[in-house]
Amino acid sequence: MKMELKNDSKFGDMPVDDFRRYGHQMVDWISDYLNDIEKFPVLSQIKPGEVKKHLPEQPPQKGEELAKIFSDINKIIMPGMTHWNHPGFMAYFNSTSSGPGILAEMLTAAFNANGMIWRTCPSSTELEQVMMNWLRQMLKLPEDFWGIIYDTASVSTMHAIAAAREEAGEKYELRGKGMTGSQSPRMRLYCSEQAHSSVEKGALTLGIGLEGVRKISVDDEFKMIPAELQNAIEEDKQKGWLPFCVVATVGTTSTTSIDPVEKIAKICTAENIWLHVDAAYGGTAAIVPEMRYILNGVEHADSIVVNPHKWMFTPIDLSAFYTRKPEVLKRAFSLVAEYLNTAEQNKVESYMDYGVQLGRRFRSLKLWFIIRYFGVDGIIDRLRYHLKLTRDFSGWINSHSHFRQMAAAPLGVTCFRAVIQNKSDDELDILNEELMNNINKTGKIFLSHTKLNGKFVIRLAISGIRTEEKHVEEAKKLLDEKLKELL
Amino acid sequence: MKMELKNDSKFGDMPVDDFRRYGHQMVDWISDYLNDIEKFPVLSQIKPGEVKKHLPEQPPQKGEELAKIFSDINKIIMPGMTHWNHPGFMAYFNSTSSGPGILAEMLTAAFNANGMIWRTCPSSTELEQVMMNWLRQMLKLPEDFWGIIYDTASVSTMHAIAAAREEAGEKYELRGKGMTGSQSPRMRLYCSEQAHSSVEKGALTLGIGLEGVRKISVDDEFKMIPAELQNAIEEDKQKGWLPFCVVATVGTTSTTSIDPVEKIAKICTAENIWLHVDAAYGGTAAIVPEMRYILNGVEHADSIVVNPHKWMFTPIDLSAFYTRKPEVLKRAFSLVAEYLNTAEQNKVESYMDYGVQLGRRFRSLKLWFIIRYFGVDGIIDRLRYHLKLTRDFSGWINSHSHFRQMAAAPLGVTCFRAVIQNKSDDELDILNEELMNNINKTGKIFLSHTKLNGKFVIRLAISGIRTEEKHVEEAKKLLDEKLKELL
Repeated sequence: MKMELKNDSKFGDMPVDDFRRYGHQMVDWISDYLNDIEKFPVLSQIKPGEVKKHLPEQPPQKGEELAKIFSDINKIIMPGMTHWNHPGFMAYFNSTSSGPGILAEMLTAAFNANGMIWRTCPSSTELEQVMMNWLRQMLKLPEDFWGIIYDTASVSTMHAIAAAREEAGEKYELRGKGMTGSQSPRMRLYCSEQAHSSVEKGALTLGIGLEGVRKISVDDEFKMIPAELQNAIEEDKQKGWLPFCVVATVGTTSTTSIDPVEKIAKICTAENIWLHVDAAYGGTAAIVPEMRYILNGVEHADSIVVNPHKWMFTPIDLSAFYTRKPEVLKRAFSLVAEYLNTAEQNKVESYMDYGVQLGRRFRSLKLWFIIRYFGVDGIIDRLRYHLKLTRDFSGWINSHSHFRQMAAAPLGVTCFRAVIQNKSDDELDILNEELMNNINKTGKIFLSHTKLNGKFVIRLAISGIRTEEKHVEEAKKLLDEKLKELL
Repeated sequence: MKMELKNDSKFGDMPVDDFRRYGHQMVDWISDYLNDIEKFPVLSQIKPGEVKKHLPEQPPQKGEELAKIFSDINKIIMPGMTHWNHPGFMAYFNSTSSGPGILAEMLTAAFNANGMIWRTCPSSTELEQVMMNWLRQMLKLPEDFWGIIYDTASVSTMHAIAAAREEAGEKYELRGKGMTGSQSPRMRLYCSEQAHSSVEKGALTLGIGLEGVRKISVDDEFKMIPAELQNAIEEDKQKGWLPFCVVATVGTTSTTSIDPVEKIAKICTAENIWLHVDAAYGGTAAIVPEMRYILNGVEHADSIVVNPHKWMFTPIDLSAFYTRKPEVLKRAFSLVAEYLNTAEQNKVESYMDYGVQLGRRFRSLKLWFIIRYFGVDGIIDRLRYHLKLTRDFSGWINSHSHFRQMAAAPLGVTCFRAVIQNKSDDELDILNEELMNNINKTGKIFLSHTKLNGKFVIRLAISGIRTEEKHVEEAKKLLDEKLKELL
């Protein structure tokens, strides 16, 4: 039996002509979506289970028309979308994808290249090297910072901690013997109370354990107190712990506070401890010249993570990781199987040697499109605009009779809460939670919260590429309106 | 100063009209690319550095026209592409992206949703639940297998080993104390000599150490020998090791050999050891009814990974992970920060609780598009066709006077080498490597190699959605031609 592929629905891919037709329809759909995005509620208003109930429990035995799938996007998927690209998305670190980023992702999917080693996609490896170098210059990081793209900051930070473990654990032969088989003392990592949960999760994954993460107190601006770090290290050494890693944060998740990296770096250098800087969110702001100070001291760090998919208009996922010790990172992860041994292997860099993942998407295309399309100046302009909108909003909060700013806002997030005379802290917690929920129910603005010193605090984050002054005005209006309703 | 976004190049995204125009251009470019893909050499023929030298060392200060970026794709990127979607890509496990998969990725990038918790994208969480259920049924896995999508098999397997570590290490309080702080004996994991390097890499990452991975011998069909596994566990227990995990492989990387999962499962059940099945490549074949036997015994396993991005026409990345013990996986990874606490949190599933990564792309859209467009029958037809092409090619190798098949070919890969009278094994190694390289230089077919019992062996893999009988004929012709030239 001779089986033919073309024009036979049993084999091969979708015919190219169909792909072209549906591709154009998809581009129109996406364009309309981006154009009309404000017509949709930014936070999905459905109840749990409402997407699932429209989906068949069994997969279809026979193929279906794409037209049917397209129409189900509107019917089934859209109601359950929280629209991250919506200009009213001011929750978390609102990260948006830009047009050039989406176009690059189309190409990434079509190429479907896996840049695990150089020859499996030379363009992926080399473009990644150049893009990491471009971004390094934009961040004004020293030349000896070597870069790699991972998927998420959680993975970047885990790799930093793994490299730190490898460096400190080398004399205990951790790589060979394993942690439970080694003579290594208990290992300890330090970060502030305000550090992201990914630090703990990375430590957990790497076998450091939750007790191996010591949280250092913060000052009243939510920044790590270097003296406390120094004391903790001293105390731990006396008790037989092996201090091996410090994670400083530039732009903490709750308040965007900026740890004093320079002072922390001095301690790490003196103690010979790996310093990783989690600038996943905040780092991007350092591209703005007057904001570069937030990375002061990073030149003494061992590694840093900056996420273009947070505040550089890059579709998720793309996390940029830099280290001055790629050889330690490589020692922590490199294993080369025979089938990946190639003639040029010693002359080229294979990114698979520097991480858990063998398979690697062609992510650098996104950075290439975005940096070229907007230009460094264009990116600076947009970041500056977000910083200005945040200053304006913080100013409004400060001058408001009912709201109080609860933390400094050096980047794009303002933390605040309504404070009403004669109401207890607990009552205010409930009031503020209700206020946030009532705003989120409007579907116009989406806010998130945190707790600071035990108090419920509302966060308003500005970093979306489509967010304009009028959306911040809308947020103000809703805050006034909904607060009035509650009082 | 009032800043306006629309039609002002300093702010906001690319204007939607521009996005629409360039989007259509991109769709046409991709359509032409897929249509003409055979005009390009499947393996990039450039030398290291040839992409890089065309790229500026500094990022552009001013934004550039997208048209210029588009034209650089052809000029700079294309020569350095190894075309994974090319029908002559028969190296590694050739994984291709299909039209519906590419369309879904466009949507994923445009939505840019991060499904870390339910409310940040209800559609992502719920579609993922339903798709994991569809795929589970297609693989005929038991109903108590709970599923999650990770990025790569390396990450899936690492999570399996982490769950195994959590289960075995619970009484030593590994999660709290950390591995070097616990009273835990040295931990040991077992896999065959033919297991994928991701098993070692996962163990390395998790602090198990390389000595903590014991490789079990294989029989002459490259399958793990269960009696050897049993002996190894016995021996290790006597020596004070803590055996905690076995990884069996369904479709090893070198030869696609299939470990005897049923027998291995019996040992694991009796010894109370976590059994993870790495079916990243092979698992998909089990969708074909007459091939389901390759997963026999998996119903007794604790976890399994199957990668739709390998042999189910899904653009990289999408790795499907199933476990019957999601609560153990959750214990190994769950940490909930305040800012992610939401009202509905106890009523819904948050996939972030089950892994290292907090950020999660909306990957289930790809599976939804692909399974619906092709239908289960359409996927079966395509897999069956690849299996038939492989049988045909193996038959040709077997009947050839100069080639010898070096391993059984139960799935889509044939391992073979030229064997010429009066040539030593070393001479044959060189000959076969030259033969492979000479074929790869033609740019028509891309083959990879492995070593089996110390011998250089060529691998020909068929799993691309665009690969037809004529491409396999081309491979045969080239093998004949290029061998003749060398003799």
